[in-house]
Amino acid sequence: MNDKIKLGMIGGGPNAFIGAVHRIASRIDNEYEIVCGAFSSSLEKSLQTGNELGISESRVYPTYQDLINKEKELPQKDRVQVISIVTPNHLHFEPAKMAMENGFDVILDKPMTLTLAEAKDLKEVQKNTGRKLLLTHTYTGYPMVKEARQIVASGKLGTIRKVYVEYPQGWLSNALEDKQAVWRTDPSKSGIAGAMGDIGTHAFNLAEYISGLSVTKLCADINTIVPNRRLDDDGAVLLKFEKNVSGVLMATQVAAGEENKVKIRVYGEKGGLEWHQEDPNSLVLKWLDAPAQVYRAGTSYLSSFATHNTRTPSGHPEGYLEAFANLYRNFALCIKAELQGKTPEKEYLDYPSIEEGIRGMAFIETVIESGKSEQKWIDFKI
Amino acid sequence: MNDKIKLGMIGGGPNAFIGAVHRIASRIDNEYEIVCGAFSSSLEKSLQTGNELGISESRVYPTYQDLINKEKELPQKDRVQVISIVTPNHLHFEPAKMAMENGFDVILDKPMTLTLAEAKDLKEVQKNTGRKLLLTHTYTGYPMVKEARQIVASGKLGTIRKVYVEYPQGWLSNALEDKQAVWRTDPSKSGIAGAMGDIGTHAFNLAEYISGLSVTKLCADINTIVPNRRLDDDGAVLLKFEKNVSGVLMATQVAAGEENKVKIRVYGEKGGLEWHQEDPNSLVLKWLDAPAQVYRAGTSYLSSFATHNTRTPSGHPEGYLEAFANLYRNFALCIKAELQGKTPEKEYLDYPSIEEGIRGMAFIETVIESGKSEQKWIDFKI
Amino acid sequence: MNDKIKLGMIGGGPNAFIGAVHRIASRIDNEYEIVCGAFSSSLEKSLQTGNELGISESRVYPTYQDLINKEKELPQKDRVQVISIVTPNHLHFEPAKMAMENGFDVILDKPMTLTLAEAKDLKEVQKNTGRKLLLTHTYTGYPMVKEARQIVASGKLGTIRKVYVEYPQGWLSNALEDKQAVWRTDPSKSGIAGAMGDIGTHAFNLAEYISGLSVTKLCADINTIVPNRRLDDDGAVLLKFEKNVSGVLMATQVAAGEENKVKIRVYGEKGGLEWHQEDPNSLVLKWLDAPAQVYRAGTSYLSSFATHNTRTPSGHPEGYLEAFANLYRNFALCIKAELQGKTPEKEYLDYPSIEEGIRGMAFIETVIESGKSEQKWIDFKI
Amino acid sequence: MNDKIKLGMIGGGPNAFIGAVHRIASRIDNEYEIVCGAFSSSLEKSLQTGNELGISESRVYPTYQDLINKEKELPQKDRVQVISIVTPNHLHFEPAKMAMENGFDVILDKPMTLTLAEAKDLKEVQKNTGRKLLLTHTYTGYPMVKEARQIVASGKLGTIRKVYVEYPQGWLSNALEDKQAVWRTDPSKSGIAGAMGDIGTHAFNLAEYISGLSVTKLCADINTIVPNRRLDDDGAVLLKFEKNVSGVLMATQVAAGEENKVKIRVYGEKGGLEWHQEDPNSLVLKWLDAPAQVYRAGTSYLSSFATHNTRTPSGHPEGYLEAFANLYRNFALCIKAELQGKTPEKEYLDYPSIEEGIRGMAFIETVIESGKSEQKWIDFKI
Repeated sequence: MNDKIKLGMIGGGPNAFIGAVHRIASRIDNEYEIVCGAFSSSLEKSLQTGNELGISESRVYPTYQDLINKEKELPQKDRVQVISIVTPNHLHFEPAKMAMENGFDVILDKPMTLTLAEAKDLKEVQKNTGRKLLLTHTYTGYPMVKEARQIVASGKLGTIRKVYVEYPQGWLSNALEDKQAVWRTDPSKSGIAGAMGDIGTHAFNLAEYISGLSVTKLCADINTIVPNRRLDDDGAVLLKFEKNVSGVLMATQVAAGEENKVKIRVYGEKGGLEWHQEDPNSLVLKWLDAPAQVYRAGTSYLSSFATHNTRTPSGHPEGYLEAFANLYRNFALCIKAELQGKTPEKEYLDYPSIEEGIRGMAFIETVIESGKSEQKWIDFKI
Repeated sequence: MNDKIKLGMIGGGPNAFIGAVHRIASRIDNEYEIVCGAFSSSLEKSLQTGNELGISESRVYPTYQDLINKEKELPQKDRVQVISIVTPNHLHFEPAKMAMENGFDVILDKPMTLTLAEAKDLKEVQKNTGRKLLLTHTYTGYPMVKEARQIVASGKLGTIRKVYVEYPQGWLSNALEDKQAVWRTDPSKSGIAGAMGDIGTHAFNLAEYISGLSVTKLCADINTIVPNRRLDDDGAVLLKFEKNVSGVLMATQVAAGEENKVKIRVYGEKGGLEWHQEDPNSLVLKWLDAPAQVYRAGTSYLSSFATHNTRTPSGHPEGYLEAFANLYRNFALCIKAELQGKTPEKEYLDYPSIEEGIRGMAFIETVIESGKSEQKWIDFKI
Repeated sequence: MNDKIKLGMIGGGPNAFIGAVHRIASRIDNEYEIVCGAFSSSLEKSLQTGNELGISESRVYPTYQDLINKEKELPQKDRVQVISIVTPNHLHFEPAKMAMENGFDVILDKPMTLTLAEAKDLKEVQKNTGRKLLLTHTYTGYPMVKEARQIVASGKLGTIRKVYVEYPQGWLSNALEDKQAVWRTDPSKSGIAGAMGDIGTHAFNLAEYISGLSVTKLCADINTIVPNRRLDDDGAVLLKFEKNVSGVLMATQVAAGEENKVKIRVYGEKGGLEWHQEDPNSLVLKWLDAPAQVYRAGTSYLSSFATHNTRTPSGHPEGYLEAFANLYRNFALCIKAELQGKTPEKEYLDYPSIEEGIRGMAFIETVIESGKSEQKWIDFKI
Repeated sequence: MNDKIKLGMIGGGPNAFIGAVHRIASRIDNEYEIVCGAFSSSLEKSLQTGNELGISESRVYPTYQDLINKEKELPQKDRVQVISIVTPNHLHFEPAKMAMENGFDVILDKPMTLTLAEAKDLKEVQKNTGRKLLLTHTYTGYPMVKEARQIVASGKLGTIRKVYVEYPQGWLSNALEDKQAVWRTDPSKSGIAGAMGDIGTHAFNLAEYISGLSVTKLCADINTIVPNRRLDDDGAVLLKFEKNVSGVLMATQVAAGEENKVKIRVYGEKGGLEWHQEDPNSLVLKWLDAPAQVYRAGTSYLSSFATHNTRTPSGHPEGYLEAFANLYRNFALCIKAELQGKTPEKEYLDYPSIEEGIRGMAFIETVIESGKSEQKWIDFKI
């Protein structure tokens, strides 16, 4: 019998974009059942969301503390198992810590915490509690991103030489601080970075994930372009990776007319690869003296990592929600394997977690420091 | 409280592609709960699928007749409400008829029945029972397809002159009759058509849906290209629509290297539009003396029909499963509106149903007749 | 010393689109020198064009007859060698015949003549005179079209099964008969076909050239969509080729918003290829169970036919004018080889000539007959 | 009568890529006639090229000094007017200076000179002699690049905020120093920069041309990736323009698998534009809350600058050679206007010249200085 994993949610009340995405992601593969939530700081709104989700009123809690404390008291067969935290950044660390310390696994939106120090503390918590953590770096959930990583790792491209990653958006081209962007541009809720935290971390994570290389130092041009905005909305970063590889990261939220155009290119001695999030089911491989190839999701010639993360045959496009669902599904498969005393398959284990979160926070702190510095290169420190 | 619609499924046992798609589609928007099934002619396999889905053994039935008869006896609060039929074509009509006659709404994969006569009988059944039917012509569930229909209807393109629709696939380039294609090329299960029934009907439906025009006659070249195949695997059709509009429909399953490349172009006096299923979130509008425009899903400037059928902001690609989910969701919203004594919104009502099914069956019969005829034009008769 | 071939031109006066294209094509590779012309039926206009081209007034003639007669009297070292005829269709046959009969090689725009009978007569003239003829089917001059032909011929795609060719334009969406389209829609100047002659013949030629297969019968839907137009402006054709291959040809001049979107796809047992004129330097090869490949002009891995017809390294796009120049250049190389008593290279000989012209005229006559017929298939007769 | 401008060429002997391109460019629009040359340091090779071009032996010179001195003695009606210099960088300044000082106009390949000091000297020469100079920054010759500049200047995009320009190539991924790359990686012939001089200057010029903004400081990461190469083959540059605009420039010759992928994006408050050299006839305009538009070369809605630089209707792709020819043609039109005592049209005057050359040399010197510096920003100094 398929025993679904019992999922609780902190945040994600009415009109919250990412909360709804998490919930769809949790449903697609039928691995989870949402059983409880503290969806909003307003109990009324929280109950409204709970009602829409068909959750019994008794399990809609006024605070995350309540949720954790009360659920802990429930019999194991009813009790929530995984808590998904989809609040603004300043409300990541405390609930994640408390959840893990009370025996729950955690799903956390990125950036993982408000500061690098919190991130490192959370690692300690994880170490001490042995709980699992999924950090929802969505873009690494795409099958062709997984394929890209495997191709680089296989050596087919030769020694890697260059990484270009970019993430242009345009939705913050005007001052929207009173609307959906409100917390994203408020330092007390978002942390020291705006665009660099919101999307720069995604680009950074994608670059390290596919290249298999760690950034060692960087040089950033960080800008706040819209007047009166309190955090950066634009930046470009020269990157140095280990093994003498260099790269460029561009992330902006004021590229008027751009939607969500994550793109990455990685070049080695023999060839390169290119992936665009807005056409996610294709991965272009380019070769020095041979025709470029277009690898496509759902085909027979892909690695087990891509295949495992696809549901439909090629030509039936899967997208952002399925990529998100892949993260949820792999996390569930690991939890179930553990419950069954099995070792999870390597494909299941391929999800972003606490190490990626720490590196993401270090990226934010280093990039903002560099943006203010007159010194060219700033070491990437954790 | 969100009372999910209770869904049963006939067909969709282990390894069935389209059954899994239906189930994901039913889950994405949280409108359904699968409560029972007769997933396979093998009870063992049926139980396996039921188990995977977390359905209690008591509601996994050996036959569809059992399912309908037994569910009918359950108290209304437990009883299945909608029965999804995902069996091969020859097992569409009887279960659909029996389900409607016993008070259940029906979701049916296309083509609707084995013959046009059955399709017309089913219409009578619907008329007599007052039940609802959703026919899963997936491609009309895409938001940019809905936008395309609205644009044509708005008159922006001027009087329509030309419709090109095509659906090339390559997966039947070799004889696969012993594998997943087995029933699709068996006349006793698939009906008189192969490719024309399997994908030609999708192309036909898409052309009529977007253009808002009905085909009145056609001239077809129907081929069986792979040796020993018993049904057509390729065809091209000259179309005449009402209002003196002409068109071309191409559908093939032997275009080696093509995946699932549904594409439609419609031209009017002032401009044209173009949509590709493999890049479904873009809709290109072309104009006589002005730059082409790329309409994108999830943006602010689209019609309510497109917006209603999108979950995420632009740049977060939705795909085939979401298009399928749109059909399920709209059907659910209509059922719920009725249960609440409300008139469904026009956006909810925009799903394919019995009339589209009848036209699809008429297409199959006319196109196959034309393929065998020495006469140029064959009237499209219902 | 590079002795350029001395070129004369009939037609191509002020504001003539195709005349200017021919002249650019003749210059690009420095193989020709324009020495004389009868550019217009108005001597004044003809002198104007001659003046612009730097041709001495004594060699601007009032009629093509004059041109041929007077040039014939000149000493061989000065005398024109090749006469390029860029007049409307009704003025192709007579000047071409007279030119060949007086010892000149001929370049002729397509369609070759006004009727199939004329085309066959011209073949006789050629046979009797031994002169050369270049028919400017531009699209076969593109290097990646040549590559496509070589790939099909190599057998890499397996036995060919299906050919789709299309040529949508939009520029005749409105009645433009008083402007540049005037002769194209006048049966006395254009012949019995409008769009089918103007662009349908290009599509037909491209399909036979790349596939290496001859059409044996066809079934056409031919339309005149713009009111009061005297010739067809739209058509779609079901094709049967030898070896039991089928295809579709679509050509229209009322696809509002389309420019000049020639596209061809050819599928065999193992894979297919796709080429678009508006992105002419790419040729996509698709494979049953392997990634698609993008062949690019100017690369190291192409056939000698593609390489011979490219001037610049890959990534330096060549276009329509260079494709046209390839026709001129190959014709020149053949003429020079003959003058030097050499056998031309096979790459030089790969230009369209009288056989293609005859087949093009047969296409026009068959397709127009089919458009009027109630019989489904009309044999392709020469 | 069309009196063609008499053109001489220094460099461009057998197998020289760019010399052949210059010659084709000079022929396309029939504005020039090549009358003399010093094509190679080997007189034998020079004579071979002269012979191929049909130039009389008496006007093939052993040295550029000879060419200038001897041509100067010829009667004006025969004498060369414009000298095109297509030698490696170290042989730009001296011949250009001598040519101008002897009364000839000059066409010069980029980068303009070996050093910034030479570039500034050349400006003095120009001032003193009053001669014209065309610097062949090819990419600004494309019609859609000109359209892009006009759109930015029109203010349609609002105040400009961000400029991304990139130029990835892969052809130097391996050590090719003994082949065509030989002088490009030899500091004595190429100057202090490799990739930055060869292609970085193109990207820089394109960014300033379209944005209408001048770079004021920059921060560069300059790399030599292929072992034993003597000059840079890769770099990325953070840019600051006047008016507080920022940007990124990426140029590399080791992106294995890339051909010649120049691309530029410029964003303003209201929208952005994007242009790719490998698809040069499209210019994409993106808008904050409206569909993107695809502007196409050869259409009716473009500015006079784009229209003037196009020869064929939309859908007939022009490419690199035509862009190059636009430079030659505009230069010729200016020379002719002057000879006729007219003021050249503003569209004719839109060609790169000595100021662009000076800025290009300043870019090279600043970017290389920055690459070696530990200081973040280096002022752009002339």
